[in-house]
Amino acid sequence: MTPAEIERLGERAEAMLEELAAISEDADRLTRRFLTPEHRRAAHLVGQWMAEAGMAVSEDQLATVRGHYARAGGTDGANRVPRLLIGSHIDTVINAGKYDGMFGVVAGILAVEHFRDADKRFDFAIDVLAFGDEEGSRFPTVLSSSAALAGNFEQRWLAGTDADGVALATAMRDYGLDPDAAGGAALTPEEALAYVEVHIEQGPVLEHQGAPLGIVTSIAGQFRTRVAVRGMAGHAGTVPMTLRRDALVAASEMVVAAEAIAKAHPEAAMVATVGTLKVMPGAANVVPDGVDFVLDLRAASDAPRHAALATFMARCEEIAAARGCTVGFDTYHDCPTAACAPWLQEGLAASLERLGLPAPRLVSGAGHDGQSMSKLTDFAMLFVRCRDGISHNPLEFAATTDMGLAVAALIGFIAAFDPKQRPA
Amino acid sequence: MTPAEIERLGERAEAMLEELAAISEDADRLTRRFLTPEHRRAAHLVGQWMAEAGMAVSEDQLATVRGHYARAGGTDGANRVPRLLIGSHIDTVINAGKYDGMFGVVAGILAVEHFRDADKRFDFAIDVLAFGDEEGSRFPTVLSSSAALAGNFEQRWLAGTDADGVALATAMRDYGLDPDAAGGAALTPEEALAYVEVHIEQGPVLEHQGAPLGIVTSIAGQFRTRVAVRGMAGHAGTVPMTLRRDALVAASEMVVAAEAIAKAHPEAAMVATVGTLKVMPGAANVVPDGVDFVLDLRAASDAPRHAALATFMARCEEIAAARGCTVGFDTYHDCPTAACAPWLQEGLAASLERLGLPAPRLVSGAGHDGQSMSKLTDFAMLFVRCRDGISHNPLEFAATTDMGLAVAALIGFIAAFDPKQRPA
Repeated sequence: MTPAEIERLGERAEAMLEELAAISEDADRLTRRFLTPEHRRAAHLVGQWMAEAGMAVSEDQLATVRGHYARAGGTDGANRVPRLLIGSHIDTVINAGKYDGMFGVVAGILAVEHFRDADKRFDFAIDVLAFGDEEGSRFPTVLSSSAALAGNFEQRWLAGTDADGVALATAMRDYGLDPDAAGGAALTPEEALAYVEVHIEQGPVLEHQGAPLGIVTSIAGQFRTRVAVRGMAGHAGTVPMTLRRDALVAASEMVVAAEAIAKAHPEAAMVATVGTLKVMPGAANVVPDGVDFVLDLRAASDAPRHAALATFMARCEEIAAARGCTVGFDTYHDCPTAACAPWLQEGLAASLERLGLPAPRLVSGAGHDGQSMSKLTDFAMLFVRCRDGISHNPLEFAATTDMGLAVAALIGFIAAFDPKQRPA
Repeated sequence: MTPAEIERLGERAEAMLEELAAISEDADRLTRRFLTPEHRRAAHLVGQWMAEAGMAVSEDQLATVRGHYARAGGTDGANRVPRLLIGSHIDTVINAGKYDGMFGVVAGILAVEHFRDADKRFDFAIDVLAFGDEEGSRFPTVLSSSAALAGNFEQRWLAGTDADGVALATAMRDYGLDPDAAGGAALTPEEALAYVEVHIEQGPVLEHQGAPLGIVTSIAGQFRTRVAVRGMAGHAGTVPMTLRRDALVAASEMVVAAEAIAKAHPEAAMVATVGTLKVMPGAANVVPDGVDFVLDLRAASDAPRHAALATFMARCEEIAAARGCTVGFDTYHDCPTAACAPWLQEGLAASLERLGLPAPRLVSGAGHDGQSMSKLTDFAMLFVRCRDGISHNPLEFAATTDMGLAVAALIGFIAAFDPKQRPA
């Protein structure tokens, strides 16, 4: 592939990402949460692109858009055909960038289009997948759409509600889905040869190394723990400081403690974040009697992550007790470290080498649908350099050339993909 | 007045408070904010009671319900008649008790009813006032309705918005008021002989002293300062702890600092509260780039209060700088200590003595409409013991007997009230 062809792929990707980014719940920023009308519009646009690229388009029971590129020699039915899965997600965080997730879907579409234009088919089919629930920015669940595809959808998730009290089951019905049929989204292990995802790095490692692309060795394990602090409400003017049981001051000490615990473990690349915190009753002249917040805790391996959560909980208990408050915990998400398959990493590395690129390896601090997919089949990820390591932010940016290289690397990977190399 | 008559007054008050408490924005708790449909319903009920007690009822340009009890010898026009003002408020905090504010309005109505039943008129009129914006639980303003009555309404308040983005001016129009006519609510100093308010203590002092009633010497001064912390958003999994500019961790340290500053000044009865705090963008997997919170800071005198705010701001600047964040302040409420008029305090003390009650003096840590009214005329407050010092909470409670004593004390005060005792 010539540099001009690679640049052209990057420009195609950039134009498609622009078009997707225009579909937002908010007028002045990009927000597109699972099962919203904007998700529907984005799914429709992605389906159009898939069809134009020569794929048969369908939508599964969790709203994942699937573009099917038939294998060589004959028509494929929808099921039972062994396929290489290429995917990412089209939902976003609140006030998002336009690359996170969307670029992986666009890269898959452009790769398939390349083969269609070259009239090239393989002895396996290709499915391009656009998941809708990777970020978890609406419901308590994350990765529910890829979990369903991997056969691990859990019925209890249906009762989880968004900030407006809408249950996942209700939102699915409103979207036109049948919550009771969620199990039908599952592929069999025989159908799924491998899952490969292209994604922006969302961190600073590749930029610091001067490498446009990198190969992920594993996805860091992650906890999400709901923390409920309860104190005693009172009048902000008349309850003496010594008699207060202020839930917000207690929660503030817990937020500071979480940071200190993560900072103490750089060797495990540990990160702790409180991104959502609600004060009750929430008036300027009332001592808060409740605070709910969510701790997001990640590390490159599982043992220090478990130890850190235990330390955090013990610190919270101490803080609460010292203030006459109580604290409760609900760890609703515990995702172990997910290792990328060596044979797929090698396939990606070979493709990068053919493009004359370095092939650095790195850990993903972010969660990805590969965590769900690892329960169904082997998976791998190709990371794309992004500017200043910024993501989940409108300043998120990946260069056109880097994106073109990523699509070219994916094309090279698929062209050389041989399911028989998979270890037994 | 016999003990049975006093008990009967307390029971009347309790029944009226029950009826008022049923008017709430929320089904399962008492919330009644300024200019809501529930404020309208409560105002209507209070107006009915005023009319039944023999008062001419009107509503002013800030929705304050006014019941006018004419003076002896002839009909009063609405204006220019010297009058004793008895009032409190009918708005509530979110998840409120049923005594705060409402009891002062009910006490005024029951006192007037007592004189009407006894066919007793004075050489001054009596206005019972039911203010609608004492708590400040909807708009950035507090005490706007009493400020308007005192002739100090500020046009800039009209642009302040509630949590849904509704401006005060819009809410006034929706309520049927003309925002441009707010100045018309003002009384002249000649019309206002004095302002007296009965209110539950909302603190533990009277209960500890075993006294049902107490006389307020002053209302503590108060700041409300909006604090805006700004950092940098990022992905909760990929931004290393050392590179973060987390606005919530910074804000958490500020909340803890505010508590420490207030605790260091018990001699000034200082209290500091953060009752509302908003995290942006507010998703579990995004490092927060912004936190807005409100500091409520009060003290029994003004010098330590100003010094404490300066200390707090300096600490916040240090905290923000150490984290690569910024912090901004907007002190939108600065209410100096308001002293109660000695001649009115003495009138209340004499009334308590005639009832055989002790007359302890105490500072009010809570803000009250008397702060606004002090700019128009002399004012005084009679506090009623409440259980455990609890207020702004459904557990708020004042005993029927204590409320009966308070109404009796107010009746005795009015009966002996002599405007000529006012110092020149």
